[in-house]
Amino acid sequence: MNFDTIISGGTLVTDTETFAADIGITDGRITAIAETLDGAAQTIDATGKLVLPGGIDSHVHLAQPSGPEVVMADDFASGTLAAAFGGNTTVMPFCLQEKGKGLREALTAYHALADGNCHIDVSFHVIVSDPSAGVLGQDIPALVEDGYTSIKVFMTYDDLVLNDRELLGVMDAARHSGAFVMVHAEGYDTIRFLTEKLEQAGKTAPYYHGPSRPVAVEREATHRAISLAEIVDVPIMIVHVSNRAAIEEIERARARGLNIRAETCPQYLVLTEDDMQGDAMEGAKFVCSPPPRGTDDQDACWQGLIDGTFDVFSSDHCPFRYTEDGKLTPKGEKSFRYVPNGIPGVETRLPILFSEGVTKGRIDLNRFVALSSTYHAKTYGMYPQKGALAVGSDADIVLWDADMTRTIRQEDLHHGCDYTPFEGLEVTGWPVLTMLRGQVVTQGDTLATTTPGGAYVARARSPDAVQ
Amino acid sequence: MNFDTIISGGTLVTDTETFAADIGITDGRITAIAETLDGAAQTIDATGKLVLPGGIDSHVHLAQPSGPEVVMADDFASGTLAAAFGGNTTVMPFCLQEKGKGLREALTAYHALADGNCHIDVSFHVIVSDPSAGVLGQDIPALVEDGYTSIKVFMTYDDLVLNDRELLGVMDAARHSGAFVMVHAEGYDTIRFLTEKLEQAGKTAPYYHGPSRPVAVEREATHRAISLAEIVDVPIMIVHVSNRAAIEEIERARARGLNIRAETCPQYLVLTEDDMQGDAMEGAKFVCSPPPRGTDDQDACWQGLIDGTFDVFSSDHCPFRYTEDGKLTPKGEKSFRYVPNGIPGVETRLPILFSEGVTKGRIDLNRFVALSSTYHAKTYGMYPQKGALAVGSDADIVLWDADMTRTIRQEDLHHGCDYTPFEGLEVTGWPVLTMLRGQVVTQGDTLATTTPGGAYVARARSPDAVQ
Amino acid sequence: MNFDTIISGGTLVTDTETFAADIGITDGRITAIAETLDGAAQTIDATGKLVLPGGIDSHVHLAQPSGPEVVMADDFASGTLAAAFGGNTTVMPFCLQEKGKGLREALTAYHALADGNCHIDVSFHVIVSDPSAGVLGQDIPALVEDGYTSIKVFMTYDDLVLNDRELLGVMDAARHSGAFVMVHAEGYDTIRFLTEKLEQAGKTAPYYHGPSRPVAVEREATHRAISLAEIVDVPIMIVHVSNRAAIEEIERARARGLNIRAETCPQYLVLTEDDMQGDAMEGAKFVCSPPPRGTDDQDACWQGLIDGTFDVFSSDHCPFRYTEDGKLTPKGEKSFRYVPNGIPGVETRLPILFSEGVTKGRIDLNRFVALSSTYHAKTYGMYPQKGALAVGSDADIVLWDADMTRTIRQEDLHHGCDYTPFEGLEVTGWPVLTMLRGQVVTQGDTLATTTPGGAYVARARSPDAVQ
Amino acid sequence: MNFDTIISGGTLVTDTETFAADIGITDGRITAIAETLDGAAQTIDATGKLVLPGGIDSHVHLAQPSGPEVVMADDFASGTLAAAFGGNTTVMPFCLQEKGKGLREALTAYHALADGNCHIDVSFHVIVSDPSAGVLGQDIPALVEDGYTSIKVFMTYDDLVLNDRELLGVMDAARHSGAFVMVHAEGYDTIRFLTEKLEQAGKTAPYYHGPSRPVAVEREATHRAISLAEIVDVPIMIVHVSNRAAIEEIERARARGLNIRAETCPQYLVLTEDDMQGDAMEGAKFVCSPPPRGTDDQDACWQGLIDGTFDVFSSDHCPFRYTEDGKLTPKGEKSFRYVPNGIPGVETRLPILFSEGVTKGRIDLNRFVALSSTYHAKTYGMYPQKGALAVGSDADIVLWDADMTRTIRQEDLHHGCDYTPFEGLEVTGWPVLTMLRGQVVTQGDTLATTTPGGAYVARARSPDAVQ
Repeated sequence: MNFDTIISGGTLVTDTETFAADIGITDGRITAIAETLDGAAQTIDATGKLVLPGGIDSHVHLAQPSGPEVVMADDFASGTLAAAFGGNTTVMPFCLQEKGKGLREALTAYHALADGNCHIDVSFHVIVSDPSAGVLGQDIPALVEDGYTSIKVFMTYDDLVLNDRELLGVMDAARHSGAFVMVHAEGYDTIRFLTEKLEQAGKTAPYYHGPSRPVAVEREATHRAISLAEIVDVPIMIVHVSNRAAIEEIERARARGLNIRAETCPQYLVLTEDDMQGDAMEGAKFVCSPPPRGTDDQDACWQGLIDGTFDVFSSDHCPFRYTEDGKLTPKGEKSFRYVPNGIPGVETRLPILFSEGVTKGRIDLNRFVALSSTYHAKTYGMYPQKGALAVGSDADIVLWDADMTRTIRQEDLHHGCDYTPFEGLEVTGWPVLTMLRGQVVTQGDTLATTTPGGAYVARARSPDAVQ
Repeated sequence: MNFDTIISGGTLVTDTETFAADIGITDGRITAIAETLDGAAQTIDATGKLVLPGGIDSHVHLAQPSGPEVVMADDFASGTLAAAFGGNTTVMPFCLQEKGKGLREALTAYHALADGNCHIDVSFHVIVSDPSAGVLGQDIPALVEDGYTSIKVFMTYDDLVLNDRELLGVMDAARHSGAFVMVHAEGYDTIRFLTEKLEQAGKTAPYYHGPSRPVAVEREATHRAISLAEIVDVPIMIVHVSNRAAIEEIERARARGLNIRAETCPQYLVLTEDDMQGDAMEGAKFVCSPPPRGTDDQDACWQGLIDGTFDVFSSDHCPFRYTEDGKLTPKGEKSFRYVPNGIPGVETRLPILFSEGVTKGRIDLNRFVALSSTYHAKTYGMYPQKGALAVGSDADIVLWDADMTRTIRQEDLHHGCDYTPFEGLEVTGWPVLTMLRGQVVTQGDTLATTTPGGAYVARARSPDAVQ
Repeated sequence: MNFDTIISGGTLVTDTETFAADIGITDGRITAIAETLDGAAQTIDATGKLVLPGGIDSHVHLAQPSGPEVVMADDFASGTLAAAFGGNTTVMPFCLQEKGKGLREALTAYHALADGNCHIDVSFHVIVSDPSAGVLGQDIPALVEDGYTSIKVFMTYDDLVLNDRELLGVMDAARHSGAFVMVHAEGYDTIRFLTEKLEQAGKTAPYYHGPSRPVAVEREATHRAISLAEIVDVPIMIVHVSNRAAIEEIERARARGLNIRAETCPQYLVLTEDDMQGDAMEGAKFVCSPPPRGTDDQDACWQGLIDGTFDVFSSDHCPFRYTEDGKLTPKGEKSFRYVPNGIPGVETRLPILFSEGVTKGRIDLNRFVALSSTYHAKTYGMYPQKGALAVGSDADIVLWDADMTRTIRQEDLHHGCDYTPFEGLEVTGWPVLTMLRGQVVTQGDTLATTTPGGAYVARARSPDAVQ
Repeated sequence: MNFDTIISGGTLVTDTETFAADIGITDGRITAIAETLDGAAQTIDATGKLVLPGGIDSHVHLAQPSGPEVVMADDFASGTLAAAFGGNTTVMPFCLQEKGKGLREALTAYHALADGNCHIDVSFHVIVSDPSAGVLGQDIPALVEDGYTSIKVFMTYDDLVLNDRELLGVMDAARHSGAFVMVHAEGYDTIRFLTEKLEQAGKTAPYYHGPSRPVAVEREATHRAISLAEIVDVPIMIVHVSNRAAIEEIERARARGLNIRAETCPQYLVLTEDDMQGDAMEGAKFVCSPPPRGTDDQDACWQGLIDGTFDVFSSDHCPFRYTEDGKLTPKGEKSFRYVPNGIPGVETRLPILFSEGVTKGRIDLNRFVALSSTYHAKTYGMYPQKGALAVGSDADIVLWDADMTRTIRQEDLHHGCDYTPFEGLEVTGWPVLTMLRGQVVTQGDTLATTTPGGAYVARARSPDAVQ
């Protein structure tokens, strides 16, 4: 056998196995795993390193319209560059339907932004904001056939919220086409109600973002989303679950035999609601939805990562800038409701999970790989092309130094944001080389490619979806 | 002591006690309870009979507008007459706000229908169908002061459904005024979705009323109603609970420390979804919402009556006629969705609960009194004026023959309907005399008064309401 | 009507009603309740006072053998005197079977200690420590017929523990005779194991009494006791429940349809495990089993009192002295396991529940009466003779001053102990007169009788027992 | 690279991956997995077949003493032969401590029976029946160091039952040595009680084996075992879980954060309690403990296999013969309690799980491999030596024909029993070649070796054990 590249001497880690072996790569794919391999044009020495499937971040927002005058801080170039340095080889951003228009138009425009600009592979989820008859009857089935096999719906936000009848319509279309539905589960009406109450009481600081969407709001929406899915008889993914009560709803649904999948994010492990209490607009830098909760909810999220309640661990990277010309912008000064809703995280997701999870002994290496890569690929129909160190899989590989200790600093990051909410967090474990389909993209802190080599990944239906 | 009337020789049963004593009545109130009393103008011999507080049915619909061309089968005269023969001394019908108008106007009109025509006492709940700023800010607080202390809201029905924001508004007004909110918990959007699906599949027979609003629909709405109440921090009553899953939501809420009250009805104890399978429109005679469920849900409702999950047992009397000029009307032939939604039951509620509950050994006499009378009075702010055999209480008293066996027959009933869904049910235990504030209203099958003596009862705030 | 005594002008409170009325008493029983009564030899003015059924404490230990060299601090005279001053008219101490002997012998000896010495009425539970064939086959059925209708069994303590086979035998005998079984649910083997571990680690201070029997020990035994009762199909009472996890086991059992009753005590509401941390032997004064827990468990116990999980609230009065000749005794200095296991509380139970419960707004007056009197009478087969303000009931009555504020002080108490674990607790609400079957026993701080007037109460079967 | 053997053209299935590849084998281990391999002395064509890690059955009884006059039907030769034909490459039988003797003696005797006679690899669990100080303090730690890293304890059976104090002792020893404890969770005392009741009532047929150990007995013991493990703070494995209620206890424990593992078996998926109703002693052929339950419990066990409640799926192979000299033996005629307790299943476990699980669409291929092989190896410290198709693992491999349909017939099986409880069950999916460490053991229905090649496997500590 001849190989283009051999990765030799490392410890391979998959979602279930940990063993020493060499990897042989041909034409961008893994073609052999063996005790020893030789005879390649290029050999990468992985001695002392972990060899992992490249990270997959199935929940990121890039170049997405975000309301009047608000520009997202990352386009595809900067977002995928940051992702690559963070140990990822695939990201899945959201393509947002414009109301009154079809899904195809949105995809065409989004592809135009992405194609040729990505440093790693990308695949899109489609956000349905206007579930017209045409969208449900024609667009969704056609897009699924074309490899756009996942849809996201929102139960809140002025411009995105769908009512229950609309949610049922989307789920029904998903059931008949095999699309897989992701749900942002927070209750719009209750948030509006509480926001008005808080504003009337003069409670407008960023901190009140939390009290405007308490746990009960998320629990109710989670229960409702699950009930709608139960009525339609279709599996769904509850994204960015933040607390124990919502987890309990998911577990109860599973005990009834429903197929409900779930995701959590770094912000629900290492941030709390108190972080939003910072002076002036400092608190705004931690504003995301659902908001970070308390330590008991952090414990519950960890428990869910440990015991399998959560299938995937994503960043919900949603980047905004807080300075303009070197000065803090006045965003959200009038009320927390105008604070751009989201935080960056695509570059720090893997080190945080590794350090807080593996290094601190909460989860093992295999679970780390499952949560950060393999299960994303499986859930969204890219497995075993992605997320695996298996013969036949894309050679999307990360070398990981389990012993490297670094402190997360904005100055070291590659995203388009001007801050990181994880500033100062010391982590042990860091990606030291990222390879995309056999090509080294980043090595240490250096970009190894001259042109962005990422491609679009058309996907099969999710194995969780109705087939 | 001198008394107008003495009831002698009976066995008194309250919600907690059972003992032999005489009752002395003066000016319509109970003024003494003693081993033996004498010296009254009139003595009623209750030897061998149970002496109970008169039944209170806190959930009946009388003379309520019910959509185009549909007339309710009972006005105040016939409805309260039937109630009196069924052992009740107070009923609580619903006064329906017309959209665009205020609550006062509705009450004025409803009083005009009721006043002078009632055979027993009445008190009104107000249905809010249009929660305008005026209704929330002025009407509700003023009405509570005037003794209209309960409000009902609907989560379904085209003309009545409130969205979550509106529900929150009503609950918030209730919280600030001390009103007590009753919730019809079924999800409008899911019912619409399923109804359309069923009709598209040609499933239009009355039987499909059940599948159009399955348990998950009621469970979801119950969880949602509870969550809204949790967010506002206000107690609510979930009316006509039909199944185990909804009960579980209520129990979980209580375990979180919330004050959630609950009601069930005869149809959830002795009818099932299969009753709606009758030929032609026969099945329509069992159509009500929520629909009767299966036997496991019946068991759960019984368990809830036994263990205190349910506070009150009401009829949800909602009477419609099925014949016109001796012929079956074509209501609902096109689709189950046009079947008038409701069944009669004000006259049969107490015998059914007594026979199926006490006679069959599921509940004891005291629990029977609690569920059928005392807890209604307490929950809705009429206690101890109503619902008690206590010194100072209104002399609203029923003599009950625990050994009388009768078969429920439409021909023997006094309501305005032309059928009873409980036709042919044999019951043991029957009311043989109903006394309203010291005056005998019915004796055996005979009306004992010449003019209707019922009065309107203004109420205090519910002890469950925020004070 | 002629009465021996009239109590006039008070506010009567029962487990369900609160109303102004006079009470007429003849031959020690209540013979009339009316708006106004006159014509008695004696009239007690209750103006401004609450008139309650006398307290019933169904869980007290008096004059009970307690191991070598340990003498219980109260005999029947001092124990019932303290109870009377604390607003009680009936107490239920435990008669302990001596191993190898029959239950009759124990009862004969115990009656000899009690008869003629009691200031209020008493009735005995029988502790079965040696369930021989004769005890199960002859003694228990015969004693039930004679009015000894309740049995207590222990799942721990060297001299009392029964194994599961023995517990099943007692429950089976109870099922066939109609006896009602009370269970002390802590696991003997686990306590022994943990005690040895703690002692090996040198952790012998009174504080370690708590860690030697943690919540899991009580939860396991509670689940086991319930399971045994489920297998035999017999109701049981779990006594002195201390924590949330045990409560959850009880609620789960009820949800399965089992009849499981439950009791809690003042120590689980106002003491915590930290109280056992006192210097020297001070901590020993709070040692009881199960031990006081944390504040979350206090909350759970309150919630159980509010929502009906608990049927009865008892003192588990179990009095020991800590001084001898004015000096602290060395009890328990070697290890917590030698600390006499129990605390006094018969005199302070009602003021604590009233003050912490009613005065602080957690429960209403009626629930207070239910928990402290009525439900004890019902559960143990003495109702309506005891626990009621009803025509025909014993005139066991307490006048209660809801506004009187006192601080609990050992120097004011009448029990035989030399301390109270509730020292310094300020309470609002105090019993100011205790009447036993028409005779005033205590008035303010004065004993009103010259000879003890208490009698033994033979009981009917518990309505909860298998009939 | 040179290989001894290549398996080419098959579809490899691991617990997470399914992909086409060749396997290269050198010196009994897998040394390469690649798209294509060549250059081996021997090539096995696996075209059209699934290539699986050899099955591991971690719960079998072979040559184990079973009471007076009862001989187990399989010794190591016949048991491992049957296992090999059933697609297994490792079995884990139990070595039983004789009371009064040490664990070493038992192991020495057991090794003498096994060594040289096994057709596949074996590893022993040690049953502790007499937890003396020496066993706990010396034997267990020493044995763990020697690779005997799992212990089994029983909560029932006359000769095996440990009381709670003994169970705590074993768990404590396990905690300090890193042994992993398996628990047979049924309550001895309750079974004795119910057995006596049934026998007294003349209910002695084999069918009454079920009623003598109902679900509540297993649920109680499961809760108790978990509580003991919680107190000691040690993980345990609940073996042969049969029903929904026991599963719920396990799930509740995990929700509290405990590490509780669980196993179920074929008899709880395809047999029910009604199978024990056969005429004469036919019902006896289905007697095992816990007994098969009802269909709802079957559903619950399937759900547990699907959702991960169960870690391992074993046979609990426990073989006895029912004929002697061609005639049915009178075992158990006097009472069900004398029926030998156990059924054979080592040869049919994998086809049943494959057919009922994979073929019928309940579980996927990867879950099949996990439940039948990989998780056994992981749980008991043999991974990745066993249970994996990974570079470096033992070449324990099964070729599986997913399309072959066979009917299970006693005449086709290789075990020492004279019946199979699964007689007549049609299954689709069958092992067609079993390879042990690179050597073909069985091919089709033919034994391919001349001498038994199985070896003893010393194991590492379980990753679940306290380290």
